[in-house]
Amino acid sequence: MTLSQFEIQDIDQTVLLWLEEVRKQTLIAMQQQLDVDTKHDVRDLVTNVDRGNEQFINTKIRNFDSNATIVSEEGFGDHQRDMQGNVWFVDPIDGTMNFVKEKDNFAVMIALYIDDQPILGWILDVVNNVVYHGGPQIGVLSNQLRLDPPSDDALSDGIVLLSGARLLYGMFGYDKIAKAALGYRVIGAAGPSFLRVISGHAVGYSSKMMPWDFAAGQVLAKTLGLSVSDIDGRPLDMLSSNIVLVATNRAHRDILTLHKS
Amino acid sequence: MTLSQFEIQDIDQTVLLWLEEVRKQTLIAMQQQLDVDTKHDVRDLVTNVDRGNEQFINTKIRNFDSNATIVSEEGFGDHQRDMQGNVWFVDPIDGTMNFVKEKDNFAVMIALYIDDQPILGWILDVVNNVVYHGGPQIGVLSNQLRLDPPSDDALSDGIVLLSGARLLYGMFGYDKIAKAALGYRVIGAAGPSFLRVISGHAVGYSSKMMPWDFAAGQVLAKTLGLSVSDIDGRPLDMLSSNIVLVATNRAHRDILTLHKS
Repeated sequence: MTLSQFEIQDIDQTVLLWLEEVRKQTLIAMQQQLDVDTKHDVRDLVTNVDRGNEQFINTKIRNFDSNATIVSEEGFGDHQRDMQGNVWFVDPIDGTMNFVKEKDNFAVMIALYIDDQPILGWILDVVNNVVYHGGPQIGVLSNQLRLDPPSDDALSDGIVLLSGARLLYGMFGYDKIAKAALGYRVIGAAGPSFLRVISGHAVGYSSKMMPWDFAAGQVLAKTLGLSVSDIDGRPLDMLSSNIVLVATNRAHRDILTLHKS
Repeated sequence: MTLSQFEIQDIDQTVLLWLEEVRKQTLIAMQQQLDVDTKHDVRDLVTNVDRGNEQFINTKIRNFDSNATIVSEEGFGDHQRDMQGNVWFVDPIDGTMNFVKEKDNFAVMIALYIDDQPILGWILDVVNNVVYHGGPQIGVLSNQLRLDPPSDDALSDGIVLLSGARLLYGMFGYDKIAKAALGYRVIGAAGPSFLRVISGHAVGYSSKMMPWDFAAGQVLAKTLGLSVSDIDGRPLDMLSSNIVLVATNRAHRDILTLHKS
């Protein structure tokens, strides 16, 4: 199924309205006592807001798109086995530790892929009230402002963003990448990290991620001509975890070369 | 010499006016091509804005306080040898790499110590238009909003901020601190890192710093009851570099214990 540009824009506008509502609910919840639980370990947090946002968004998706299947973080999605049809990805709070502790540097992310093709992605920066959204047919916008592709800087001329835990435990060659870059930063969340690469404030970002962590970022990054792959240069598996690498084309080559060496 | 609260507030208001002007000049300069040079190495950046801001601020200080001596980053200060009298500390752009690459997460910082006592500190977050300011006699304010002391969380219950370079090269036991914390982040600038601790979004921060990097943060942090020392628990030397540790009292004890072990 191929959608017209008009249909794509209609979907975009619809999801932007959902995100306005999600933003309001999230800000209200931040003024109240959060209900924080742990999942796999003490650092893997989930709150009432993660769950509430996911239920809200997934309900909106199912009412809007009767053919939708949903891949989402907190258990209200489907058990999707392939990328056929309309597959939606939902991360109701990306960066839950930042949400709980920093009250900043977290995001709400949604993406739509149809028959394995990236169609639209949305990354909402709740605190700064900015939504990055778009896809290959309509370009990438920051709220209403159209984004240009970032300049194609090399790793040695830019800041790279890395998963703190993986760097700390010597995984994935992240120490070599950090040393070769002009500088590195640890942000602690995928959405805000993708946004820094998309807006040209960092030349690359790598972390181990689940599909809801990278689905929206991949749509936006590829639309702007950035490279997205796993750390070995292969396309991402949309239905399992990957060691994701998003970067300028030059930094992507620099990092793949370092990773193989 | 002891200043009245009225005199302290007068100094505070005067410096806030300078910082309004500095903010305007900095935002204008960010719209133009920056003139970026390196100092000691390729990662030690300085721009026309660092130099221009320092000249502007130092001139204002000298016109305002004829007894001032100035400790500042870019060479327009004095060669101060002790902490007697009115000693001003100026960091015209703290986090120059972030300023150049991220266009965010940098600060302008000023502090006043009299006869070795912390009097006032100012940390201006240019992009978000917020000045954190105050001292022991007037408390700490974020613009006009009075800040409460952050809650006294332990290292294992909070985010710790660390110097990326020192962590990467295995210095100062930062790997042990990062592993013991709930999480760690690398921000790449002192001012924004101090602000996260001061506002309770992180439980501690450590990096090797020069006096202009920590002078303002120390005033604000101590005023709010946070612990500030070097990594061995000793008072900071205000006239040379230190491995600075600012933290909640509990996280400070946790980190000193780890550092000694």
